[in-house]
Amino acid sequence: MVNVGVLGATGMVGQRFIQMLDKHPEFELTTLAASSRSAGKPYGEVANWYLDCEMPESVRDMEVVETDPSAVGDVDILFSALPADVARKVEPKFAEKYIVASNASAMRMEPDVPLVIPEVNPEFLDLIEVQQRRRGWDGFIVTNPNCSTIALTLTLKPIYDAYTIKRVYVSTMQAVSGAGYNGVPSMAILDNLVPFIGGEEEKIETETLHLLGELDEGVVKPASFGVSASCHRVPVVDGHTEAVFIELDDEFDIDDVREAMDKFRGLPQKLGLHSAPEKPVVVRDEENRPQPRMDRDMDGGMAVTVGRLREDAAFKNSLRYVLVGHNTVRGAAGASILNAELINEIL
Amino acid sequence: MVNVGVLGATGMVGQRFIQMLDKHPEFELTTLAASSRSAGKPYGEVANWYLDCEMPESVRDMEVVETDPSAVGDVDILFSALPADVARKVEPKFAEKYIVASNASAMRMEPDVPLVIPEVNPEFLDLIEVQQRRRGWDGFIVTNPNCSTIALTLTLKPIYDAYTIKRVYVSTMQAVSGAGYNGVPSMAILDNLVPFIGGEEEKIETETLHLLGELDEGVVKPASFGVSASCHRVPVVDGHTEAVFIELDDEFDIDDVREAMDKFRGLPQKLGLHSAPEKPVVVRDEENRPQPRMDRDMDGGMAVTVGRLREDAAFKNSLRYVLVGHNTVRGAAGASILNAELINEIL
Amino acid sequence: MVNVGVLGATGMVGQRFIQMLDKHPEFELTTLAASSRSAGKPYGEVANWYLDCEMPESVRDMEVVETDPSAVGDVDILFSALPADVARKVEPKFAEKYIVASNASAMRMEPDVPLVIPEVNPEFLDLIEVQQRRRGWDGFIVTNPNCSTIALTLTLKPIYDAYTIKRVYVSTMQAVSGAGYNGVPSMAILDNLVPFIGGEEEKIETETLHLLGELDEGVVKPASFGVSASCHRVPVVDGHTEAVFIELDDEFDIDDVREAMDKFRGLPQKLGLHSAPEKPVVVRDEENRPQPRMDRDMDGGMAVTVGRLREDAAFKNSLRYVLVGHNTVRGAAGASILNAELINEIL
Amino acid sequence: MVNVGVLGATGMVGQRFIQMLDKHPEFELTTLAASSRSAGKPYGEVANWYLDCEMPESVRDMEVVETDPSAVGDVDILFSALPADVARKVEPKFAEKYIVASNASAMRMEPDVPLVIPEVNPEFLDLIEVQQRRRGWDGFIVTNPNCSTIALTLTLKPIYDAYTIKRVYVSTMQAVSGAGYNGVPSMAILDNLVPFIGGEEEKIETETLHLLGELDEGVVKPASFGVSASCHRVPVVDGHTEAVFIELDDEFDIDDVREAMDKFRGLPQKLGLHSAPEKPVVVRDEENRPQPRMDRDMDGGMAVTVGRLREDAAFKNSLRYVLVGHNTVRGAAGASILNAELINEIL
Repeated sequence: MVNVGVLGATGMVGQRFIQMLDKHPEFELTTLAASSRSAGKPYGEVANWYLDCEMPESVRDMEVVETDPSAVGDVDILFSALPADVARKVEPKFAEKYIVASNASAMRMEPDVPLVIPEVNPEFLDLIEVQQRRRGWDGFIVTNPNCSTIALTLTLKPIYDAYTIKRVYVSTMQAVSGAGYNGVPSMAILDNLVPFIGGEEEKIETETLHLLGELDEGVVKPASFGVSASCHRVPVVDGHTEAVFIELDDEFDIDDVREAMDKFRGLPQKLGLHSAPEKPVVVRDEENRPQPRMDRDMDGGMAVTVGRLREDAAFKNSLRYVLVGHNTVRGAAGASILNAELINEIL
Repeated sequence: MVNVGVLGATGMVGQRFIQMLDKHPEFELTTLAASSRSAGKPYGEVANWYLDCEMPESVRDMEVVETDPSAVGDVDILFSALPADVARKVEPKFAEKYIVASNASAMRMEPDVPLVIPEVNPEFLDLIEVQQRRRGWDGFIVTNPNCSTIALTLTLKPIYDAYTIKRVYVSTMQAVSGAGYNGVPSMAILDNLVPFIGGEEEKIETETLHLLGELDEGVVKPASFGVSASCHRVPVVDGHTEAVFIELDDEFDIDDVREAMDKFRGLPQKLGLHSAPEKPVVVRDEENRPQPRMDRDMDGGMAVTVGRLREDAAFKNSLRYVLVGHNTVRGAAGASILNAELINEIL
Repeated sequence: MVNVGVLGATGMVGQRFIQMLDKHPEFELTTLAASSRSAGKPYGEVANWYLDCEMPESVRDMEVVETDPSAVGDVDILFSALPADVARKVEPKFAEKYIVASNASAMRMEPDVPLVIPEVNPEFLDLIEVQQRRRGWDGFIVTNPNCSTIALTLTLKPIYDAYTIKRVYVSTMQAVSGAGYNGVPSMAILDNLVPFIGGEEEKIETETLHLLGELDEGVVKPASFGVSASCHRVPVVDGHTEAVFIELDDEFDIDDVREAMDKFRGLPQKLGLHSAPEKPVVVRDEENRPQPRMDRDMDGGMAVTVGRLREDAAFKNSLRYVLVGHNTVRGAAGASILNAELINEIL
Repeated sequence: MVNVGVLGATGMVGQRFIQMLDKHPEFELTTLAASSRSAGKPYGEVANWYLDCEMPESVRDMEVVETDPSAVGDVDILFSALPADVARKVEPKFAEKYIVASNASAMRMEPDVPLVIPEVNPEFLDLIEVQQRRRGWDGFIVTNPNCSTIALTLTLKPIYDAYTIKRVYVSTMQAVSGAGYNGVPSMAILDNLVPFIGGEEEKIETETLHLLGELDEGVVKPASFGVSASCHRVPVVDGHTEAVFIELDDEFDIDDVREAMDKFRGLPQKLGLHSAPEKPVVVRDEENRPQPRMDRDMDGGMAVTVGRLREDAAFKNSLRYVLVGHNTVRGAAGASILNAELINEIL
C-alpha cells in the first residue's frame, strides 16, 4: 500500500478525495491537511461533511495537520484540493519531497508540469523528469485539467484521432458544486441561472488544446484548432452538461464518430487501473439524454456520457452532441486519483 | 376599441394573452374560446389560473365559447394560443372572416402567411394581400415565430443590418413554462436539465433565416447564412437564456456592435405602439448578466436583454453574447399582440 | 428462490420494486405486468426508466404481461404498485390464487386485510387466516401504509411502547416522486410549494392509529390518541420530511426518548430479514439534520432518520422532532418487500 | 415630506427598503448608510443589487455614508436593516436624536421598546414616552417582529379577538431570502430542505405572545397561551409558508373564523396609511392555496394569504390553516415602513 494524503481536506473536492480513497486497494489515506484553524483537531470535528454518503469511519478521528511539508509525515502521494492561490505557494514546497497530484489550476500551465488525462495524453508524464531536473526536486507535481475541460477533451480525443478538427464551440451548463460548498448562494440560482464563471472559459479554451497537443523534446505544442466556450451556472447539484458543436476538415459518417467514441479506450483501460471506467465515453441513443441527475454517476462518476450525437446540416463537415460528466468525480478528485494510479503503475 | 378574442384561452399562453389584454388601450377582450369541455361555463370556473398575478376581474364571469368561427361573435382580431395540430385545422376557418394573430407554429411556414417580428420584418405583412387573394379569405392569418427565435432574431437584426453574418451557433437554456403548464414533470427537471426539446432546433434554424430574409414579389427568400441550435430545458420558471456565437464576414469593433444593438429601434418604436418596448434590445455590461429571474421582465417582458457581449478570439471576425427573453411575453402572447397592434395601426 | 412479479411495473414505484428485487437473495423476479398497452412487449421498450441507476439487465428483454391473473404464470408473490382504483378491482382477483403484497391504498382499511409495518405490528398478519377463510381465497392480500405514515409510525412506535401518547401534530414536506413521474408539473413547484396532497392527511390520521392499534379476536382496535396532519409538496426529488409535535400523558426525560428510538428494533431485525435496516430509526444529533438529500438513502433508504429531537417547553410533557424517510423505498416498494420477506420467513 | 434614511442599505432588506421608499408619498429617501467599506462611494457602485426590479434611479448616484449618527445629516426617520449585533450597538446612539424604525431583532424585547404590528398592537407605541423618559433620548426606537411572527400574528389576531386560544403549533417553510443574499448556499438547498433556522423558533414563540399581550402601566404582559414552532428552510426565493394548528377553549363555527379573518381591519386600514393593504389577511378557498410563488405579492406583498382553513377533527375545538406572507416585504422592510407611517400619522 502507498500512503497518501489530501491537502485541502475539508472542502468539497477534499471530501470527494476522502470518499474515493476510502477502501482504495492501493492507496492508504493516512494524512489530512487543512488550514491552521483545523489543524490538531479530529477531522470529524472540523469538517462540515457535504456529501450525501456518510463520512468514512476511518477519517472521523484522524487528526488534521497543517498544510506544511514538515507536518505531513510518512506519505508518498499528496492529493491537492487547494485553492489556486494557496496551491501556487505551497505545492512547489511539497514537490521538493512528495508526489503532488493536484486538481488546482495554479501549476497546470507551467511548461514542465504535466497536465494529464490518462486516457488522452499519458505521455506528458515524461515531463516529470524535465521538471525534477530543472527544479531539483525529489518529488514532482502532476495536474489534471479543469472539470469542464476533462469531460470535453475525453469526448474530443477519439474524434481528434480519426479526423482533423477545425472548430469547437462549447456551451456549458455547470453544477453548483463546482464552485465549492459556499460558492453559489441559493438566491443567485433558484429559478435562475448565471451566465458567467470566472476564468472558466479561458481554462477550457487553453487546456483543451494543450491536452490534445504533442510533447516534442520536452515542450508541449498545443493542438492548432480553435475552441470557443460560453460558461453558465445552472441549478443542478452535481454534473456538468456541455453542448458541443464541431466542424471537421473531413467528411465523416456520423455512425463512425459514434463508434469511435464507443470504442475509445486509453491506457487506464489497458492497464486496468482501479478507478478507470470501463468506457471513458458512454454513448446513449435516447433523444433526451444525457441528463445530469440521471447520468452523472455513470461508472462511479468516472465515465462521460454523450448523447444527441448528430450531424449539423447548417455547416459543412459538422456535428453536434451533448455530454454530461461528474464535475467533482471525473472532473476533479477522480481525475487526480487516476493520474496517481497511472503514475503508481508505470513509474 | 377593437373587439378581440383569445383561442386556447385556458392554457399558459392563453392566460398571458388575457393578462396582457387586460386594460389594453385599443383592444377590448370580449371573447374567450376553449375546448368544448369548457364551453358554456364562466372562465373563472374552467381556467386553472397559473400566473402569479390575479386573474383579471373582467374575465372571471365571461362565458367561454367553443373554438368555432360560428361561436365567437362580434370580434375583429382573434389571438391564437392553440396547439399546432388544432391550429392547422381551425385557424384557416377563422381566417375566412377574422384576423388571426397566431402564436401557433402550424401556419408559420406557409408561403403566403406572414411570419413577423414587427421590429425585424414588418414588410412581410404585404403577404396578407397575397394570402387573401389566393385563398379568397376576408380575414387573414399573421404569425409570430417560436419563443427562442424571437429573442435570437431581435438581437441578430442590428448585426445583420451592419455586417455580413456567416455563422450562428446558439445553445439555449429554456424555461419550463415554454412547454405549457403540464409540459415538464418536476421529476424531469429538479436537480436536472433535459437536453432536448422536440422540434425546437429546427424551428430556430428555419425561422431565423426566414425572418431575416427578403420579400421579393410575394415570395420570402431566406437569409443565406447558417444557424445551428442546441436546445436544453432548465429548471427556470420563465425566461429563455441563449448563448450565441457569431462569425461575420467582416472585421468589426465590439463597441460598434454594442452600439448597434443599443441604438436599434424598429417600426413599433417609431409608431409608439402600446406594447413596444422602448428598446427592443437592452445591453447590460455587468459580467454576470443577463439572468432569467432578474432580466425576464425587462420593459414588461417585451425587451430582450443582452450581456457578456465580447469578441471571440478563437475565430476570425467572431463574437459571442448571452441573451435572455421572456418566453411567454415577448416570445409568445406579447409577440402576437405587437403584431396585431402594428396591423391595427398600419392597415 | 420464490418467484415474484410486479403489478404496475412501469410506474415510479414499479421501477423501485424492480430495482430492489434485482439480485434479491430470496425473490426471483420473473413477471412484470402492466397495462394492455404495454403487454407483449419487452420491458426495456415500454418503460420510461426514471431512476438514476440503470435499468437492471435482467428485465430489459422480459416480456410485459397483462394485469390479469391468467397472464402472470408461475409466481408466488405479486408486488402491487397499482393505482388505487385499479387495485381495488384487480387485487382481489389475484388474491384468489397469489400472495399480493400491495403498496396501493385500496384495500388497506378492509377489516380483514393486514396493514403492516413489520417492525410495528407484525401480529396483524394473523388477519391473513381470517381473510382467506372469509373470502375463500388460496392467496391473500397484505398491505403497507402510505409513505408518510410509515416514516411517522416507525418513529412513534418506540415512544408509544414506553409512554402514553395524547396528541400528535405532523406537518409534512413531501418529495415530488410521491406523486408519480407525471404527478407534479414543474410549473407547480419551482420556486414554490403546494400545501395540499389529496387524501394524504386522512391517510396519515387513520393509518397511524390503525397500525399502533391492537388485534383483538380478528378485529383491529385503533390506538386512541389524536393525530392531526398538514401535508405539503416541496421541490425535493425523493425523501419526505415531517415535523412532529407530540404531547404525552407522562413526564419524560428527552434522553430516554432518544435512547428508545435508537435502541428500537423489531421482528425484521431479529429475524435478519434481507431488506431490514440495522436500525429502523437513526437518531442524529447535528442541529440541522435530517435533510432529505443527505439522509434519504440511510441504510439503503430503509431507515428513517430523526433529528432535532427536543423538549417542547410550550406545553406540558411535550416534545418535538423532525424525520426524513425515503418515500419510494421505505415508504413504498421497500415496505411491500419487507412485508413479503417477513411472510416468506414466518408463514 | 419627511426625510428618511436606511441603515444597512446594501443588504437584502436594505434593498427592499429602498425599493419600497422609491416614490413614497410621505417619505423622501435622502440617506443611505452602510459599512465603512462602502462609505463615500455612490450606492450604485457598492451595492450588488439583488432584487428582480431595477435599482431606482434616485439612489444610483447617492453617496453612501457611514453607519454613524454624525454622518446621516438632516433626516427624521432611520429605517434599520442592520444585523442584530451591529444594531444592538448603534441603534441606541441613533435614537438619541432620530426615530429608528428597526427590523433588527436586537432591541425587540427591551421592556421599553415597542414591538409593533400596526394592525395588531398599535397601542404599544405608548412605550415611546416611557423609553424617551427613561433613556433621556430625543428620538426613539420602534421595532417590528421577525418575518415569520408577523405573518402568523396577523392571522391569529382576529381569532384571538373572538375566541380564547389555548395552543398554537406552527411549522414553517421559509424562503431563502430570509437568510440574506449569501445566507443559504445553493449546495444546501437544491433538491433539499434544512430543518433548522438559528433563533427562529424562539423568536416566533416569544414575539407572538408579546404582540398579543397587553400594555399595562408601561409594562407588556404577554398573552398566556402556548406557541410551539418548528422552522424549516425550503428552496423558495421569497415568501414564507406556515402550517398552523390551533386549539381554542371555545366551540366555534369555521365559517365564523373565516369571516373574522376576512373582515379583520386594523388602524392602518382605518387611517388609510400608504402601505397598508386593503385587507391584512386574504382568505382563499381553493384547496391548493396559498402558494409562495403565487401569493407572496398579494397587495404588494403587504397582505398575508390564508388557505386550507378547516376544522381539525382530531382534537376538540381545533382548527388548522396554511398561510403565506412575503418575508422581506410584510415580514421586514414593509413592516418597518408601516410602523413609521403610523408614527408619522399619529404622533
